[in-house]
Amino acid sequence: MELLKGNAVVGQSGGPTAAINATLAGVIKGAIEDKTGAIETLYGMRNGVQGLLEEDLVNLTEMFGCDGALNEEKFALLKQTPAAALGSCRKKLPDPDKDPAFFEGLIEIFKRYNIRYFFYIGGNDSMDTVAKLTKYLKTSDYEMRCVGVPKTIDNDLVGTDHTPGFGSAAKYIAATMQEIIRDCNVYRLPAVTIVEIMGRDAGWLTAAAALPGRLSDAAPDYIYLPERTFDEESFISDVKAALEKKFAVVIAVSEGVRFADGRYVGEGTQSGVADVFGHKYLAGTGKALEQMVKEKIGCKTRSVELNVCQRCASHIASLTDIEESVRTGVTGVVNAIGGATGVMVCAVRAEGDYAIDFVTRDIASIANAIGDVPADYINEAGNYVTDKCIDYILPLIAGEVETKYSCGLPVHLTI
Amino acid sequence: MELLKGNAVVGQSGGPTAAINATLAGVIKGAIEDKTGAIETLYGMRNGVQGLLEEDLVNLTEMFGCDGALNEEKFALLKQTPAAALGSCRKKLPDPDKDPAFFEGLIEIFKRYNIRYFFYIGGNDSMDTVAKLTKYLKTSDYEMRCVGVPKTIDNDLVGTDHTPGFGSAAKYIAATMQEIIRDCNVYRLPAVTIVEIMGRDAGWLTAAAALPGRLSDAAPDYIYLPERTFDEESFISDVKAALEKKFAVVIAVSEGVRFADGRYVGEGTQSGVADVFGHKYLAGTGKALEQMVKEKIGCKTRSVELNVCQRCASHIASLTDIEESVRTGVTGVVNAIGGATGVMVCAVRAEGDYAIDFVTRDIASIANAIGDVPADYINEAGNYVTDKCIDYILPLIAGEVETKYSCGLPVHLTI
Repeated sequence: MELLKGNAVVGQSGGPTAAINATLAGVIKGAIEDKTGAIETLYGMRNGVQGLLEEDLVNLTEMFGCDGALNEEKFALLKQTPAAALGSCRKKLPDPDKDPAFFEGLIEIFKRYNIRYFFYIGGNDSMDTVAKLTKYLKTSDYEMRCVGVPKTIDNDLVGTDHTPGFGSAAKYIAATMQEIIRDCNVYRLPAVTIVEIMGRDAGWLTAAAALPGRLSDAAPDYIYLPERTFDEESFISDVKAALEKKFAVVIAVSEGVRFADGRYVGEGTQSGVADVFGHKYLAGTGKALEQMVKEKIGCKTRSVELNVCQRCASHIASLTDIEESVRTGVTGVVNAIGGATGVMVCAVRAEGDYAIDFVTRDIASIANAIGDVPADYINEAGNYVTDKCIDYILPLIAGEVETKYSCGLPVHLTI
Repeated sequence: MELLKGNAVVGQSGGPTAAINATLAGVIKGAIEDKTGAIETLYGMRNGVQGLLEEDLVNLTEMFGCDGALNEEKFALLKQTPAAALGSCRKKLPDPDKDPAFFEGLIEIFKRYNIRYFFYIGGNDSMDTVAKLTKYLKTSDYEMRCVGVPKTIDNDLVGTDHTPGFGSAAKYIAATMQEIIRDCNVYRLPAVTIVEIMGRDAGWLTAAAALPGRLSDAAPDYIYLPERTFDEESFISDVKAALEKKFAVVIAVSEGVRFADGRYVGEGTQSGVADVFGHKYLAGTGKALEQMVKEKIGCKTRSVELNVCQRCASHIASLTDIEESVRTGVTGVVNAIGGATGVMVCAVRAEGDYAIDFVTRDIASIANAIGDVPADYINEAGNYVTDKCIDYILPLIAGEVETKYSCGLPVHLTI
């Protein structure tokens, strides 16, 4: 295959994570250290495709280059900065068959900057963007390669062993659960604490609450995931059983759990707003469970919502996750230069000791599919995860990042 | 003064903190490394005075001693364990004048174990316990020395420059605010984020939200403390003014802010429950402000409650705080052996470069008084803190602890 020469553009989209900038750092590293001469300048689009449409671009080669090499200091700071440094958006692209004019406009912009490589870092919806652009490009004579670089704390992309960003969120959740459980156990009074964890459709993040159990007895008593129907009666009977054995009962629950009739448990307290992708914003699943315990059992009850900290607590990022996020970005660049397009970078786990290889897979089969927690990762009663699930997640939170601090606080990089 | 020989007992009381076990570690270090021979055995009371009354005691000299020296490994693990390792309680002692029989019962227990030193680690209410016991002892012929060893994330004790536990909570809040602000800034949409921070009466913790401003522009736009009356109209006008200049507006608010008529702002959503000390449990100040913005401005708004993580996030404890907490504990023991009783260990800050000396002060003047944020630490408009306030807090969050991890998670010690 002939070497495709030109410029490249990278964007970040969807919800921020603690590792999305490590992936960006990987794309920057891949572009700056490219020895083939394929990529001259790497641009960053501010706020994803929204910034691209407005031609709000930043020259990342200039910013992160240092006499043709990578500026290691800026690279290190970018890796430890949470939330999309380039900004994000939640813009949904139209169907190329229905609105080809939109894509013609995009191609004009690409032409203007001689952009031949398009890297998009994001979750499910961002992979949809890459898939649509790739689909349109097949009908165009403009040669450009599009690669999806995954990130999502939700770990719900198919085709990959896990997603960059998940490990750091899981580490934050596991460490925080351990601390909350310590906190709950100081009094000799019956008390129920409900910890609401992110996860609209997939229970991966909530499953991470079980991890401290491998280290000590500081694990939640029950874990409820959206993959199983939530039954109020079973829940109350679970809590009652635990209260007979101990004072402090701690529950981990996914924001996305639903009743048998399909209603979200937190529906009573949800905002009713849906985003442009049709996802409903949930809030209040923990509050709903708190109310159930107060009414049916009557002991001291409180709920804790881990909220946005789950996706931005870079100060306790997983070293494994950050290193893999960088590798994901580099792999995307190397493979695009090698000819790949319409693909997503996927992680493949080796058998035996934990090791990850990165490959690329056709994005059309990945976008818009949801990777749930498998049935054998959840116990029969539907109120905990199995050892197999813990074995799967545990290596992803391994290792601690060395963070640069100043004035007692982590130093972040602004692009 | 003659050397008072016998055993000692230590307890933890009130809300847990990330540093309360470092203070306990200091008391243990002081007792085990005592060269005067005053303290033979240091007992720990489980769940504070509640465990003392039930004679639920644990031999800490045995547990943390190692051929007469301190077991450094256990000492290090205890320092990095959040929440009271001995357990806590919220038991209020009766007035010695009204119920001397209660104290006679306590003295019987002290006699049984030959306890001559009483160390109590806690906040305002715990200092009340030490003050009452000291008061009773003056009427008794049983010789015992009582020392209050402060801890409270609230930093609201008088007589001391600051309280152990505050620095770590402040560091968690400042680091988390910085991360949340990064997270909020990824979209180009008007959005208001309200972060509710602990602090029923004193705004110290909420003031810590301003610290990231020393490092970058990632500081909240407004900070509302309970020391100033909360006015809905001014608040809405503040938010509107900020939204004219930027997309992401971030507010830090103390859970304890009140309207001019004395009502808590979060009253509508509070539980209505009061604890044995008569403090009302608040919840929902952030939600109340969220509702105001939604109604009066109508843009995207959310609230985040930092919740219990503020007091138990030992994984990001302040090194300064942890080291001072240990010193506080050691100072308590050394001073008690030297003859002090009815006192609390207090921190005195030197002029110029940050340095702390520890002294003891009469506890009667300290217990039950509240140390507010002073007027000149708050700006005129009452919607931010001054540089003087930031200068005061900043040294307290300095330095990072070296935490031992296993399986990707901090290792905690169970007593």
